[in-house]
Amino acid sequence: MTTRRVCFTLQVDPARLEDYRARHAEVWPEMRAALSEAGWQDYSLFLREDGLLVGYLVTEDFEAARSAMEATDVNRRWQAEMAPFFDGLDGGRPDSAMQPLQEVFHLD
Amino acid sequence: MTTRRVCFTLQVDPARLEDYRARHAEVWPEMRAALSEAGWQDYSLFLREDGLLVGYLVTEDFEAARSAMEATDVNRRWQAEMAPFFDGLDGGRPDSAMQPLQEVFHLD
Repeated sequence: MTTRRVCFTLQVDPARLEDYRARHAEVWPEMRAALSEAGWQDYSLFLREDGLLVGYLVTEDFEAARSAMEATDVNRRWQAEMAPFFDGLDGGRPDSAMQPLQEVFHLD
Repeated sequence: MTTRRVCFTLQVDPARLEDYRARHAEVWPEMRAALSEAGWQDYSLFLREDGLLVGYLVTEDFEAARSAMEATDVNRRWQAEMAPFFDGLDGGRPDSAMQPLQEVFHLD
């Protein structure tokens, strides 16, 4: 199913949830602006109590939107600061680990 | 953070993913109509390869939207047919197990 809706999951270290919440209540304005410019729309992050993180966004082309962010300096700095919050990245960046889930149902 | 955006997770039995996908490609028209009437908007279900199911919707009041569905006969029939697909319900209905995650970030 082709869709402009994208959902991905990541795993936040359960010991660092409070810090993660606090950082995301104050995302840098230039990071927000870069996301918008790169085509990330209606973008939310949801956190489950065990550290499961769910991302949801709407975009014309997720690979293009991700590539556009990767080309920015602000994203490189942001992802470097966020990487220690996550489990299972194996040294990679959080944004590189965003694998879209399959949409199996949609109702407008 | 108060929001009209709702995200919840459930766990589908990994042995039944194909059946789950097939059922959700053919959700009963009367079930879709009941959801719309109960205020479930822009509602998607996303399935991870290990059976993690992510629901996302927009609604004015999730408890009200859930209660409105619970009052319908079509939802009772649908949830009874879906229950065997899920792990961890302890005999309950899937819709009763939809616990909203905390939204920690949003960009319009």
